[in-house]
Amino acid sequence: MSTSPSKELETFVNPQKGRDYKISIRIPEFTCLCPKTGQPDFATIYLDYTPDELCVELKSLKLYVWSFRDVGAFHEAVTNEILDDLVKATNPRWMKVRIEFMVRGGIYTDVEVEHFKK
Amino acid sequence: MSTSPSKELETFVNPQKGRDYKISIRIPEFTCLCPKTGQPDFATIYLDYTPDELCVELKSLKLYVWSFRDVGAFHEAVTNEILDDLVKATNPRWMKVRIEFMVRGGIYTDVEVEHFKK
Amino acid sequence: MSTSPSKELETFVNPQKGRDYKISIRIPEFTCLCPKTGQPDFATIYLDYTPDELCVELKSLKLYVWSFRDVGAFHEAVTNEILDDLVKATNPRWMKVRIEFMVRGGIYTDVEVEHFKK
Amino acid sequence: MSTSPSKELETFVNPQKGRDYKISIRIPEFTCLCPKTGQPDFATIYLDYTPDELCVELKSLKLYVWSFRDVGAFHEAVTNEILDDLVKATNPRWMKVRIEFMVRGGIYTDVEVEHFKK
Amino acid sequence: MSTSPSKELETFVNPQKGRDYKISIRIPEFTCLCPKTGQPDFATIYLDYTPDELCVELKSLKLYVWSFRDVGAFHEAVTNEILDDLVKATNPRWMKVRIEFMVRGGIYTDVEVEHFKK
Amino acid sequence: MSTSPSKELETFVNPQKGRDYKISIRIPEFTCLCPKTGQPDFATIYLDYTPDELCVELKSLKLYVWSFRDVGAFHEAVTNEILDDLVKATNPRWMKVRIEFMVRGGIYTDVEVEHFKK
Amino acid sequence: MSTSPSKELETFVNPQKGRDYKISIRIPEFTCLCPKTGQPDFATIYLDYTPDELCVELKSLKLYVWSFRDVGAFHEAVTNEILDDLVKATNPRWMKVRIEFMVRGGIYTDVEVEHFKK
Amino acid sequence: MSTSPSKELETFVNPQKGRDYKISIRIPEFTCLCPKTGQPDFATIYLDYTPDELCVELKSLKLYVWSFRDVGAFHEAVTNEILDDLVKATNPRWMKVRIEFMVRGGIYTDVEVEHFKK
Amino acid sequence: MSTSPSKELETFVNPQKGRDYKISIRIPEFTCLCPKTGQPDFATIYLDYTPDELCVELKSLKLYVWSFRDVGAFHEAVTNEILDDLVKATNPRWMKVRIEFMVRGGIYTDVEVEHFKK
Amino acid sequence: MSTSPSKELETFVNPQKGRDYKISIRIPEFTCLCPKTGQPDFATIYLDYTPDELCVELKSLKLYVWSFRDVGAFHEAVTNEILDDLVKATNPRWMKVRIEFMVRGGIYTDVEVEHFKK
Repeated sequence: MSTSPSKELETFVNPQKGRDYKISIRIPEFTCLCPKTGQPDFATIYLDYTPDELCVELKSLKLYVWSFRDVGAFHEAVTNEILDDLVKATNPRWMKVRIEFMVRGGIYTDVEVEHFKK
Repeated sequence: MSTSPSKELETFVNPQKGRDYKISIRIPEFTCLCPKTGQPDFATIYLDYTPDELCVELKSLKLYVWSFRDVGAFHEAVTNEILDDLVKATNPRWMKVRIEFMVRGGIYTDVEVEHFKK
Repeated sequence: MSTSPSKELETFVNPQKGRDYKISIRIPEFTCLCPKTGQPDFATIYLDYTPDELCVELKSLKLYVWSFRDVGAFHEAVTNEILDDLVKATNPRWMKVRIEFMVRGGIYTDVEVEHFKK
Repeated sequence: MSTSPSKELETFVNPQKGRDYKISIRIPEFTCLCPKTGQPDFATIYLDYTPDELCVELKSLKLYVWSFRDVGAFHEAVTNEILDDLVKATNPRWMKVRIEFMVRGGIYTDVEVEHFKK
Repeated sequence: MSTSPSKELETFVNPQKGRDYKISIRIPEFTCLCPKTGQPDFATIYLDYTPDELCVELKSLKLYVWSFRDVGAFHEAVTNEILDDLVKATNPRWMKVRIEFMVRGGIYTDVEVEHFKK
Repeated sequence: MSTSPSKELETFVNPQKGRDYKISIRIPEFTCLCPKTGQPDFATIYLDYTPDELCVELKSLKLYVWSFRDVGAFHEAVTNEILDDLVKATNPRWMKVRIEFMVRGGIYTDVEVEHFKK
Repeated sequence: MSTSPSKELETFVNPQKGRDYKISIRIPEFTCLCPKTGQPDFATIYLDYTPDELCVELKSLKLYVWSFRDVGAFHEAVTNEILDDLVKATNPRWMKVRIEFMVRGGIYTDVEVEHFKK
Repeated sequence: MSTSPSKELETFVNPQKGRDYKISIRIPEFTCLCPKTGQPDFATIYLDYTPDELCVELKSLKLYVWSFRDVGAFHEAVTNEILDDLVKATNPRWMKVRIEFMVRGGIYTDVEVEHFKK
Repeated sequence: MSTSPSKELETFVNPQKGRDYKISIRIPEFTCLCPKTGQPDFATIYLDYTPDELCVELKSLKLYVWSFRDVGAFHEAVTNEILDDLVKATNPRWMKVRIEFMVRGGIYTDVEVEHFKK
Repeated sequence: MSTSPSKELETFVNPQKGRDYKISIRIPEFTCLCPKTGQPDFATIYLDYTPDELCVELKSLKLYVWSFRDVGAFHEAVTNEILDDLVKATNPRWMKVRIEFMVRGGIYTDVEVEHFKK
């Protein structure tokens, strides 16, 4: 199943911890492999979050996303995995990951996962 | 009325049972027959759900959708029937089926049905 | 004012009375007459409802809509009248009628009326 | 077949006969009847022309278009007929009529007819 | 500042006082003058309301809107003023006016004002 | 390969043989089978032509298009075949058929074929 | 008929007379009066030209366009008049004026006029 | 990091303090510099607020926005800073700033910050 | 520079050699590597051609496109290379390849190459 | 007037000199200053060309475009100047530059300049 990519998510200190605000990121250049057939899958990642102490650094996010290029990944599993990695790295007040996969067999699939800080 | 199609919906184990998340599926290639006239109907199916123990497997979903090709089906009945079959197969926490039918007699019709786990 | 059209709305038995669900209908081919000037008006009708015992049959709905062709009808009155006729015929759990009229004198008008079963 | 509507197309003198120029008119509110079934048809008329001595007056054009409301008209015939009437009234250097009919039986039809002054 | 236009808003009796419903009006042809520079401003007016005893008559609304043509009007003030005039004329259960002004100095401005009957 | 469907294209006499004009038809509800896998294919047909003696009758065209429902058909072959059948039935001055197939394996395909009368 | 506005079109020297090039200008804020009824008309002006010795200065063009605000102007006449004024001011190698008028009586009208230097 | 721009936000007295209403402003012409690389960044600013005593004057807002042209500014920091400056100048009942930055490294970023008066 | 991918383009016999017709293919899932930085590039390929003896088989085309996944490729070179490979495999009467690359450094690039049979 | 920016356009050898092909580049992040008022202008540059011996290198093109940031530039002059610089650097078979400027005073302006190799 999903071979874990090298995860080097870097962060920087949230410049405004005094209030809740929302950062929204769209990454239309995600590709991984189908774990069943080895064929490439393509997708757009939508990431929204409210930072607490840390924000995710964009260049490391780009490299993190690229690290899935040769990794087999099921739609549902990879969306949860990316949320988990980002939550672990930034411990945000709130975070949502939605991945919009390109059509396969005439079927379009999105997976959307959300995290709330306890 | 609606002659029941062969229903072989397969499932796989939800990779993340620990949290609620949403899977959204769009299938623009649905066709069945008008039970009154025998003429073909065309539609797009929108399926959204939050899995519990099981997710629906996409290839079997494609075959399930194709199985309606020679079946007579009223708009309201077939939307409820597809929801019922998917609920039976996956027992989800929440599920919604919306079918957007192509124009007939200058009239456009959608039917939307929702299920909540008790 | 609004000369009443012949109203022959037919119904069929709701195939799924056990749950609330939504039927949405769009009819872009509505025309009636302006009661002041006798000039034709054109509009699109949007009908959404949750059936109780009965659903509206689409062919009779089409004929019902056509019956306004030679009828003088004010925007606000005709939208309420169509809702009343549909409620009377189907006694739904919930129903909404919105009519989007084409521009007159540089002004675009919509009227939206809703009914809830007591 | 097509019962001829009352045709009262009025004209005014072209204010600039010294050069060729193009007048383009769009009329989204055309309705007539299907000569086979008596059912209403709806369409948008696109009229483009280069006037010679005369331009078509818009209010009379509107009334002319309304005069088809109770007339049975085949798609191909009515498009040619409207071009012929407009050519007869204005004798333009060039004229084109395109009528975009609303869907019938899942089929969308346009008819486009052109006239060049000899 | 804003020289008051002649205000002759006419009304007619609400044909359906027994229920709340919504009338939505869009007027893309509004122009007034900038009170600072005297230069023309252009805007689209969006009016939504739930009538009580009275509905606003559309022809008088058109004339009312035209009456601002030679009037100096600040964005924020004129939106509130139009709401006030319409509330005074029709005493609605609810009303909202939004004016979308055309770009000035690379800046796009909308003003949205709402009224609830006490 | 392509098992030939029953072809009952009906025609009617061109109401305006005296000039060239263009009829454009769009049919978004075409389905056939993949000859390799037996899986359904979906497509939109675009037909444009200038009639000579005969026009194609729309109801028979609809039935003709439906007749491919259970027929195996390669993209390139079926587009040429439909043009050939329509040319044979109507012998037009000019005709073009374009078929826009839905995505397969991440690839979108259109085929466009044209005929000129000699 | 059309009362002539004050015409103060200013120009500047074409910075590149050595080659033909195209300047395209869009002015969505044109208003004048209907000469029949005195009611306001609204339109968008599209101006394209290839300058020879002179280019039109934009601020004076804006003022020129505003000068029609209180002028009665027929669609066909005003489009030709604006072209004539611009040609007189700049004597271009080529120029085209298209005016897209807002809907009146359910009818949309464009007028397009072109000039070539002899 | 972010070198502070000259801030000369001017205000005028809210013409309607008696009710809450919303002013929405869009500024598609924002540019600053990347504090890491010195390269230009481009963005669109969306500002929505409900004024209390004061409204922001648009010309000074334009100049304020221009003052960032030579300033290094991180996405998250500059959005919070602009909200803070606008809140300080106008002390609104409610205010929201959203900045939509142009793509960098294949990644699109928005930041949205909100303020409520206590 | 561009390490050549394994090229296994398969063909089938053109089912209609008697006339020129056009096949249009769109492949939104192309990725290769930047030869300078090793970073992934993403693009959409548009292929149009008129076959002579042979058509390109779609499954092998998909595999051919995938074979660039780990290959370094300059925009201009790879577009010419793909055209050359397709021309070599199918020897078409006419062929055009356009590749629309995703934004890099705020710059969007397309390359379009055409081949005509001598 | 237009203070000349530092021009360091780099090139690389055209990888396919044997045929004409087209490279299309879009740069939505162009800004310069108005030479009259010193205020910033924003624009999108569209560049299309057929290379001869040399192609323009994209990173140097980006820096070249940035070099206008503090330069005063009239619309017509700067478009011609950018074409001249690019022609001088690459000596292409054909080249076209179009610049789409953002609205000023309610007026939208594009300038399009073309070069053909003799």
